[in-house]
Amino acid sequence: MAMMVAAARRLAGRSGAAPALSSVVLRSATLQTMAGAFREERDTFGPIMVPADRLWGAQTQRSLQNFDIGGEREQMPEPIIRAFGVLKKCAAKVNMEYGLDPTVGKAIMQAAQEVAEGKLNDHFPLVIWQTGSGTQSNMNANEVIANRAAEILGHKRGEKFVHPNDHVNRSQSSNDTFPTVMHIAAAVEINSRFIPSLKQLHSSLHTKSLEFKDIVKIGRTHTQDATPLTLGQEFSGYTTQVKYGIERIIGTLPRMFQLAQGGTAVGTGLNTKKGFDVKIASTVAEETNLPFVTAENKFEALAAHDAFVETSGALNTISSLMKIANDIRLLGSGPRYGLGELILPENEPGSSIMPGKVNPTQCEALTMVCAQVMGNHVAITVGGSNGHFELNVYKPLIASGLLRSLRLLGDASASFEKNCVRGIKANHQRISKLLHESLMLVTSLNPKIGYDKAAAVAKKAHKEGTTLKDAALNLNVLTAEEFDELVVPEKMLGPSD
Amino acid sequence: MAMMVAAARRLAGRSGAAPALSSVVLRSATLQTMAGAFREERDTFGPIMVPADRLWGAQTQRSLQNFDIGGEREQMPEPIIRAFGVLKKCAAKVNMEYGLDPTVGKAIMQAAQEVAEGKLNDHFPLVIWQTGSGTQSNMNANEVIANRAAEILGHKRGEKFVHPNDHVNRSQSSNDTFPTVMHIAAAVEINSRFIPSLKQLHSSLHTKSLEFKDIVKIGRTHTQDATPLTLGQEFSGYTTQVKYGIERIIGTLPRMFQLAQGGTAVGTGLNTKKGFDVKIASTVAEETNLPFVTAENKFEALAAHDAFVETSGALNTISSLMKIANDIRLLGSGPRYGLGELILPENEPGSSIMPGKVNPTQCEALTMVCAQVMGNHVAITVGGSNGHFELNVYKPLIASGLLRSLRLLGDASASFEKNCVRGIKANHQRISKLLHESLMLVTSLNPKIGYDKAAAVAKKAHKEGTTLKDAALNLNVLTAEEFDELVVPEKMLGPSD
Amino acid sequence: MAMMVAAARRLAGRSGAAPALSSVVLRSATLQTMAGAFREERDTFGPIMVPADRLWGAQTQRSLQNFDIGGEREQMPEPIIRAFGVLKKCAAKVNMEYGLDPTVGKAIMQAAQEVAEGKLNDHFPLVIWQTGSGTQSNMNANEVIANRAAEILGHKRGEKFVHPNDHVNRSQSSNDTFPTVMHIAAAVEINSRFIPSLKQLHSSLHTKSLEFKDIVKIGRTHTQDATPLTLGQEFSGYTTQVKYGIERIIGTLPRMFQLAQGGTAVGTGLNTKKGFDVKIASTVAEETNLPFVTAENKFEALAAHDAFVETSGALNTISSLMKIANDIRLLGSGPRYGLGELILPENEPGSSIMPGKVNPTQCEALTMVCAQVMGNHVAITVGGSNGHFELNVYKPLIASGLLRSLRLLGDASASFEKNCVRGIKANHQRISKLLHESLMLVTSLNPKIGYDKAAAVAKKAHKEGTTLKDAALNLNVLTAEEFDELVVPEKMLGPSD
Amino acid sequence: MAMMVAAARRLAGRSGAAPALSSVVLRSATLQTMAGAFREERDTFGPIMVPADRLWGAQTQRSLQNFDIGGEREQMPEPIIRAFGVLKKCAAKVNMEYGLDPTVGKAIMQAAQEVAEGKLNDHFPLVIWQTGSGTQSNMNANEVIANRAAEILGHKRGEKFVHPNDHVNRSQSSNDTFPTVMHIAAAVEINSRFIPSLKQLHSSLHTKSLEFKDIVKIGRTHTQDATPLTLGQEFSGYTTQVKYGIERIIGTLPRMFQLAQGGTAVGTGLNTKKGFDVKIASTVAEETNLPFVTAENKFEALAAHDAFVETSGALNTISSLMKIANDIRLLGSGPRYGLGELILPENEPGSSIMPGKVNPTQCEALTMVCAQVMGNHVAITVGGSNGHFELNVYKPLIASGLLRSLRLLGDASASFEKNCVRGIKANHQRISKLLHESLMLVTSLNPKIGYDKAAAVAKKAHKEGTTLKDAALNLNVLTAEEFDELVVPEKMLGPSD
Repeated sequence: MAMMVAAARRLAGRSGAAPALSSVVLRSATLQTMAGAFREERDTFGPIMVPADRLWGAQTQRSLQNFDIGGEREQMPEPIIRAFGVLKKCAAKVNMEYGLDPTVGKAIMQAAQEVAEGKLNDHFPLVIWQTGSGTQSNMNANEVIANRAAEILGHKRGEKFVHPNDHVNRSQSSNDTFPTVMHIAAAVEINSRFIPSLKQLHSSLHTKSLEFKDIVKIGRTHTQDATPLTLGQEFSGYTTQVKYGIERIIGTLPRMFQLAQGGTAVGTGLNTKKGFDVKIASTVAEETNLPFVTAENKFEALAAHDAFVETSGALNTISSLMKIANDIRLLGSGPRYGLGELILPENEPGSSIMPGKVNPTQCEALTMVCAQVMGNHVAITVGGSNGHFELNVYKPLIASGLLRSLRLLGDASASFEKNCVRGIKANHQRISKLLHESLMLVTSLNPKIGYDKAAAVAKKAHKEGTTLKDAALNLNVLTAEEFDELVVPEKMLGPSD
Repeated sequence: MAMMVAAARRLAGRSGAAPALSSVVLRSATLQTMAGAFREERDTFGPIMVPADRLWGAQTQRSLQNFDIGGEREQMPEPIIRAFGVLKKCAAKVNMEYGLDPTVGKAIMQAAQEVAEGKLNDHFPLVIWQTGSGTQSNMNANEVIANRAAEILGHKRGEKFVHPNDHVNRSQSSNDTFPTVMHIAAAVEINSRFIPSLKQLHSSLHTKSLEFKDIVKIGRTHTQDATPLTLGQEFSGYTTQVKYGIERIIGTLPRMFQLAQGGTAVGTGLNTKKGFDVKIASTVAEETNLPFVTAENKFEALAAHDAFVETSGALNTISSLMKIANDIRLLGSGPRYGLGELILPENEPGSSIMPGKVNPTQCEALTMVCAQVMGNHVAITVGGSNGHFELNVYKPLIASGLLRSLRLLGDASASFEKNCVRGIKANHQRISKLLHESLMLVTSLNPKIGYDKAAAVAKKAHKEGTTLKDAALNLNVLTAEEFDELVVPEKMLGPSD
Repeated sequence: MAMMVAAARRLAGRSGAAPALSSVVLRSATLQTMAGAFREERDTFGPIMVPADRLWGAQTQRSLQNFDIGGEREQMPEPIIRAFGVLKKCAAKVNMEYGLDPTVGKAIMQAAQEVAEGKLNDHFPLVIWQTGSGTQSNMNANEVIANRAAEILGHKRGEKFVHPNDHVNRSQSSNDTFPTVMHIAAAVEINSRFIPSLKQLHSSLHTKSLEFKDIVKIGRTHTQDATPLTLGQEFSGYTTQVKYGIERIIGTLPRMFQLAQGGTAVGTGLNTKKGFDVKIASTVAEETNLPFVTAENKFEALAAHDAFVETSGALNTISSLMKIANDIRLLGSGPRYGLGELILPENEPGSSIMPGKVNPTQCEALTMVCAQVMGNHVAITVGGSNGHFELNVYKPLIASGLLRSLRLLGDASASFEKNCVRGIKANHQRISKLLHESLMLVTSLNPKIGYDKAAAVAKKAHKEGTTLKDAALNLNVLTAEEFDELVVPEKMLGPSD
Repeated sequence: MAMMVAAARRLAGRSGAAPALSSVVLRSATLQTMAGAFREERDTFGPIMVPADRLWGAQTQRSLQNFDIGGEREQMPEPIIRAFGVLKKCAAKVNMEYGLDPTVGKAIMQAAQEVAEGKLNDHFPLVIWQTGSGTQSNMNANEVIANRAAEILGHKRGEKFVHPNDHVNRSQSSNDTFPTVMHIAAAVEINSRFIPSLKQLHSSLHTKSLEFKDIVKIGRTHTQDATPLTLGQEFSGYTTQVKYGIERIIGTLPRMFQLAQGGTAVGTGLNTKKGFDVKIASTVAEETNLPFVTAENKFEALAAHDAFVETSGALNTISSLMKIANDIRLLGSGPRYGLGELILPENEPGSSIMPGKVNPTQCEALTMVCAQVMGNHVAITVGGSNGHFELNVYKPLIASGLLRSLRLLGDASASFEKNCVRGIKANHQRISKLLHESLMLVTSLNPKIGYDKAAAVAKKAHKEGTTLKDAALNLNVLTAEEFDELVVPEKMLGPSD
């Protein structure tokens, strides 16, 4: 019984330093005494025992045993599993057009739909760190769907009434299905989750830039006092950054919408029928409501993953959100002795030792995520550049990296928006106090007295701790009236007429 | 009831697009009808409802609600949770020496031990992407341990008979505890798991280099035929790479063994007693059997994480395992039309479409992991370089990145060793065939006839598709006897006398 | 005199080592004998000695002395200098419309034109590693142009008849000029040099894919034998990769064509006139024949450099050229015992010790460049994410990194095309030999006999070293006629009817 | 003649753009008038024209023509050239022991010495982006030294009286010489330039930490006000970071001191004599005064460059100097409305538009350099992980990347020390003002009144804008006397007794 528990733990939670499943599963003596706990499945390597309550087959089981890397945290991301459901459903549908027995085909469609809905997630135990083509996850999908479809048709698991290769994987190869589910998963995540989160952030920043449009404040360049601008203008810069970020990610989609399916093993489309590639793409498009098309060159689609490197590059660009978060925490620094221009929402106690402390924690989560996105981008880039011949074999790395970046950056943007940006308030009093004695207001004297004299005024005021006006009058470079006319922060917010 | 299920799912599996816990937990109408499902906890922000069956308190709950980023895959890594158990146990022990009530202290020690053993993992739901100081995970540990200790002493959860801050966190700040658990977790992982895996790989490669020591084969530089060496020599290069890798990671440990504990909020040690820092380090050392010491400068220990960047750099160097795995898959390429010098173990069917295909899948998993380690290294580097003032606030990113790299690279090395290296066989026949007609054997003529004439021989043989000997005789640069004397692959394996 | 010595040392050997260009130009003989070897220049910090034969002024000289970092290899890239010439010329032109004295304006235009043509390169000694706004290089341009314009008008250097700030820099700030020249320089390089090089490579690969369209060869996935394809199909994948690469870089241009000019110090446009920003952009567009426009939000244009991170991301994607170069060197490996399917041009002796060796050196140069581009991308990303408030101060890093990547990747692509791709020949004999005994031809049996039986055939043939046909007949899975009908490499190159 | 024109074009304008140094040296006037402007050199590929006044030979010339990548900025770094001088001198010395004609040997030593001193730099025109083994630069060294040695012995260039391969390169291969010069160059740079610069920075920071040891200031965590520390303590953290940085780089030296020389083409040492490897290492050690030894495994030394990846990793860790520079610029932000605790040296005018502005430019240069070092590290890592079989062919990339990082980080540290750190002053008045009203002084109440009550005090004071004391008295948590006794910043700087 402990054996079974161990095996169960192994399967449910392969983390820790647990004894590998293989040692458990293959002790036939034990197995013989536990009726029903395991069943036999077989593949071209022969028979192997599989937990009876799981739908997977022999190849999944072998992968579980051969790739004990990282534990369950490292399982193939759920969007990949769901995309397999979508793809296998569509493949069955198209295959029926090309002669697949409709009874089998419909059962496959039904089983695949369950995968697409996440109902069979527990039957996908494989980790990212397997074969670089994702073959084992493709077989996992084939095996689960085959067994489930067989059950639907009243047959037993493992009997291959529905065959994982000949039926579920018909006209397909891992080499074209895995890149296809990569593209489906990424495109769905981008459209259903990532872009909406960014748009919400954009909208919130834009609202703030309007709300703050009349608050004149000191500018800062090189972290030093500079000429004034409005807080609204400052936020308009952030808004534009996010707007362009959205444009950038959208700009990558045309290539993400290209599906490799139909290329089979090396890109030629061997063992498919003419038109299969176009039909499968349009079926997936229908199923997902996204404009997928068949890849114009299947050799590129299998052997390179530039589309993923490109999209990761867009996320890497968007991770300049780090700059926005940094600004906001510095502008909100204090409460008494920072810059103190912004008041950030207080969401939780900030310190386990300093009572009453509140910290810009949303900025911290977001900037950490940005750093992770930059790191993932390097991993994806390295993987993308290392294909060999007809196949890039860093697919699970590339797919999981991009999906993680999408999820984290989307979620962190949403959290930042909801728990921080939305509630930011301007500290009017402090902003106003800082503004009016800024030495950089001297810049507005340039057109009148020239750069060199203006510099002398600023330096004198700085050295002596006086106002610019005192210094200017003292140096006799202009009159009090002229000074008052020229040095008006509110007039320094744009070009002159 | 669906509400409760939703909440449970939320807590057990915050992935997917589930409605956030907050929306569930805070609908008081629902709560009123479910007696006992939730209890009230409070912190300095006020009261908040917490699932009744969980040990965590108010601050953990707030973090759960405020940082809905990434789902449960993104939870703080288990080695961090366990290290918190170790640290809190040791802190209680030392605090008793400084006056902590022994009844409370012992209960804390017992509760903390449970955390250290992983028994309370389900009570640590927080994700990596929270406050950058890890304060919320420190409070999670404080709250769980306080509630559990209170229970041990017969009190109720939430009553704060044992106080998370005043008792469990006594003499501590998140700012020194989190870096301390980072160091404990990493040092434990390195010593208990990572180095043993690398050593096993080293040993296996070394065994192969001895096994293959008499197999003379063609060398390859620039991927082109070059002068011969033994297969054992080739593997000795790999062996040395791994050996140095082990030395490199060991070389980082002196700084990893330095603990920040005792620095409290900003490094000064405010609210601790003299000697606390030294005692806690030695208590942790005792508990873990690793030579931890107190950090010589606590300001550096809180504000920078160069020790992690350095250790990640060692892993990044070790990820040149990519080169070894690449060589092995290329040397094992075939079965008929690759280089074919090595025969790799066949572990599983390689293709879902090409029957009988077997692939170098362990090489693929390992090289993917290497790419991820390189990526994590960049994330860690960016996080490490971005601290502000007295505190680096990229701690959870840095910690989780390094721990993931350690786990993946260790596990993948172990898998590669067990499922690939150990079973590699030399293809003697093929190796021998390739060797004897290599044009680069001409190199051994240099000392006799000079580089230019030797080049002419090789070029002639290449152009005409003949043997070197034919070409040499044809060019009259030496006699057949001289040629046979000089061009002997077996004599080309080292310096001459 | 100490000043002179210091300057001499500085100019003669800023690399701390080699006599360099400057030492030739400013020979010590000159320094020893000429009273007028230095002249005084001044700025708001006071007077400073400057080499008499150089056009730069006080601020350039200060930067030279304050930033002794890296030596002359690290000077600001030439495209930046030239772009300053373009911009300052256009600014003078527009400023004249807004009241700048036409005599002065025209002289500035003439001097700036000389800068744009590279005639005054020797007067731009500053290194990349200066102030992060590029202010010192902007002042270098202002000073050189002011002095040169003054000379044109018959005045002496240093007298500020033409003032570097009030005239040359009129209506400008470093904070908008430097990002403007960054964009001009990058856009010019991309359009005049980078894209043409990539297009040439694309064209050459495309030509090869046509040339090789009838050569059927073995495919390789996982570096292992796979189903066949044509060499032309293989090259069509490369062609498509490059084609998409070109599309990717073109896709970044809309944001690269946005100019920050007109934002002045913090983005507000203080000290410019209304319309100045639009006019300067259109003048630059005219001057360069590229569709520059004024940036829609100047705050973003000064404070973030996402456009550069994005473009660098495109180059990072294109650096998957590494995969193409890797394939080509492996397919061309040999001469006798590699894969040997391609014959690469022989451009130079390959080895200093192995006579007659020829190596895929162009592949090596290109792959090294790809690695450098990936590295630069990280540097640019880090710089791009680290701006503060109204100004990103990593501008020279970002600009120089992207320009280096553009130059290297463009030149290496051109070199690879010219010295490698163009001359690649297929080794027909070898390709044909490899093809016909490939076990993976078995794949075409799947639709007929199913995956499991086909696998048995392949495994049997592999184990026994026989042909597939022998194995198939032996296993009685089909007849000789059926086999011959189905297993025809030439029929395995695409979907069936 | 076409040859001459091509060469002229090539030499005069390899940048494709500006007339550069070479154009000055080899003016077209010279070319037009001098019959002897070119001479013929030959290698195994046949004859080729070479500029008459240059010492290089045929293979250098071919590389010049075949690798038109990047222009002269991309030439092989000078430390590599010099190291070639050192190595070739030592090789001649050792070769004489093994039978090299002493006349030839001594001439080689003399010529090599000139290379080592940088006197022949102009004869090393090759760029980094050549063959990945550095063969062409090795041949460049061999050719230049052979021709120069021949001249010394009264022979003509190009006659090969001294042969580049048979004499100068005797017992060597590019495959062992290039990694050897990589190690020599890096070790020399580290010891003679990099470590001294870091030590100077360390010393200067340490001096400041002592100078500031009595200045009590507010701490900041999460960029928010925290408990106090001294400015000296803050600087002690920086000091420790740099101290550990020095330890880290020193820790990499044992492997950097290992030389590949003696491995020749593939690591076996073919064509050397027994003992050659040990002798050459000890001769180089003598020549350089650095403890070089022969690599314990030559296969690893040729095929992997983990030693460079490791050392680059140390630089990457040290690039956390970014954190120090960031702190200093933020602490020095102002002049009026930043944090203003530090007064940084004013080295130059800071703005071309804002008169009187002074910026933290040294911080900016240093942080840009840190970003570049991080980027180079990725490039080096990618190069290091991509070797094939017996040879890594990313050597020039790896070598140039590390040397650039060493130079930039060393120089920038020196500049930062000299032009910034050394002159930093504390703004006593401002520091003191900020300190005494900090809400985080409340932390010292924890041990007395507990965390929750202390939090209430801080929150009340914050909300009402009062002092902590007022709030505390108002809440009746302690008396005025108790408060005054407990809340004393000067007592909050360390553990209590």
